[in-house]
Amino acid sequence: MENYRTKCIALLKDRGVTLDDITDCARFLQAEYHIDLKNEDLLESLMSVLDKREVQFAIMTAIELDREAERGQMIDKDLEALLRRDEGLYGVDEVNAYGICNLYGSIALTNFGFIDKRKYGIIDKLNKEGKDGKICNTFLDDVVGAIAASAASRFAHKWGK
Amino acid sequence: MENYRTKCIALLKDRGVTLDDITDCARFLQAEYHIDLKNEDLLESLMSVLDKREVQFAIMTAIELDREAERGQMIDKDLEALLRRDEGLYGVDEVNAYGICNLYGSIALTNFGFIDKRKYGIIDKLNKEGKDGKICNTFLDDVVGAIAASAASRFAHKWGK
Amino acid sequence: MENYRTKCIALLKDRGVTLDDITDCARFLQAEYHIDLKNEDLLESLMSVLDKREVQFAIMTAIELDREAERGQMIDKDLEALLRRDEGLYGVDEVNAYGICNLYGSIALTNFGFIDKRKYGIIDKLNKEGKDGKICNTFLDDVVGAIAASAASRFAHKWGK
Amino acid sequence: MENYRTKCIALLKDRGVTLDDITDCARFLQAEYHIDLKNEDLLESLMSVLDKREVQFAIMTAIELDREAERGQMIDKDLEALLRRDEGLYGVDEVNAYGICNLYGSIALTNFGFIDKRKYGIIDKLNKEGKDGKICNTFLDDVVGAIAASAASRFAHKWGK
Repeated sequence: MENYRTKCIALLKDRGVTLDDITDCARFLQAEYHIDLKNEDLLESLMSVLDKREVQFAIMTAIELDREAERGQMIDKDLEALLRRDEGLYGVDEVNAYGICNLYGSIALTNFGFIDKRKYGIIDKLNKEGKDGKICNTFLDDVVGAIAASAASRFAHKWGK
Repeated sequence: MENYRTKCIALLKDRGVTLDDITDCARFLQAEYHIDLKNEDLLESLMSVLDKREVQFAIMTAIELDREAERGQMIDKDLEALLRRDEGLYGVDEVNAYGICNLYGSIALTNFGFIDKRKYGIIDKLNKEGKDGKICNTFLDDVVGAIAASAASRFAHKWGK
Repeated sequence: MENYRTKCIALLKDRGVTLDDITDCARFLQAEYHIDLKNEDLLESLMSVLDKREVQFAIMTAIELDREAERGQMIDKDLEALLRRDEGLYGVDEVNAYGICNLYGSIALTNFGFIDKRKYGIIDKLNKEGKDGKICNTFLDDVVGAIAASAASRFAHKWGK
Repeated sequence: MENYRTKCIALLKDRGVTLDDITDCARFLQAEYHIDLKNEDLLESLMSVLDKREVQFAIMTAIELDREAERGQMIDKDLEALLRRDEGLYGVDEVNAYGICNLYGSIALTNFGFIDKRKYGIIDKLNKEGKDGKICNTFLDDVVGAIAASAASRFAHKWGK
């Protein structure tokens, strides 16, 4: 089967998320543990996370749903309304994100919970952008948080070896 | 917030899944443990599962994605193709289903794994229907399996009291 | 089967964790959303979480492992050493805690991630206590965080109705 | 940190589980998909699973708890009794096993659910052995199922490339 990593990086960029934005979040999550974090190490971790098939499919599905909601042609109008107002109790967006974190173990899950509530960097930007009624980032902010949390967790495990 | 249980039962029916189809699966999963399973007890368990907000949102999202793929107007054509051919390595459909099972503990998860591979009753029918190229049940069969697995697990826990 | 709620409350108290300590954490997690949080509502939520069989078993297993490590008579001395130094990459303690959170959906999981990293109240106290080399709270701090996260999530869902 | 793979293989063997027993389960899980399964490929997948730190810690914790219950010197006698009779509603044994499966994605989880209920090969043997009242395999059978399910899932993903 095709590897969709390049496609996913382009999809993310098209939605306003660069690789630098994500390594920035990963750095924030690991900053307390390692003083001398090199950008190239974090980027290597991030690229490895993005190379996983399950991660690519989670990204593609997340961005499709956000764009469908934006376009306003969803079949289920209740669902469309839930996505457009980023309903806090919806939860499927976080379930999709956990599908990524789970692959990187328990540190990735706690990292995700932290950055999801603390809203750092691009996560905060995506979240605020989604409040204007036009742009829908309901799934995207969680997926980006999960990728950053996973890259940071992978880094912590490698460092621990 | 609105309770979408009635809506979800209608959505399921519209996709060819009745409450009886689901209790039939739940009965299959618990049959070895309890000789005298009453239909009304299984139905009570099922209705309680369907009353959970997270379950309703998982159903709505699953059916939306299947219908979007069927309609052939998805924005991401790679994703549309993956859904239409029910790609075995896609995985997001199962992640969405686990979001339901997790609410009912570890028995629900093993129940789901079993019925997902063993393809009993309506699960088998949905799966075969999805192979014709017109109908897409990629998300639906997993969601139905998860609901049946959860209803059976809830029943087992109540019985154990 | 027996309901172990009373036993678990006693076990927690014996390890230095009161019901008030846990509602205090739950309040911290929900504070930003609801101004007028009543103690009795949080306590009702907490008691309902503690009434679940899976929660009781997670508590009993967590406290057993911590006490075994403290007693210094574990069969596997490598494992004993990992628990006694609260090794950050161990992870089984968090997996056990997720078993609780999962029952309360995605909000419980993000709540847990946040309080696990932010170390508030009793979580912080347990964590520091575990650093002295005598007391082992490796599993307990995560279980307490998970219970508080679940009580807060349950409260959020009820409030949203 | 030390890599405990060799130790874990020895621990498993000491509890009656060989690498062949596990590849046999993995083969059973993947048999329907690939006609020409080579033993060395399955073994390579298994050794890679056993190389993960989280997997090693899950194995060590599982075997410790089983042996503690067997020895009859657990501090919590209720917990000891639950483990010794392999109580079906206990669930923490499966939660520990999911900690392994989650690292290998949704296919690993459904594989686990299937083999856990279908009880094939060594899983069946461990399960029956645990019924005699002397030996306790409550945690071990789930961990072995999870390792086999993960090895099979990893293999499926590699094959799909």
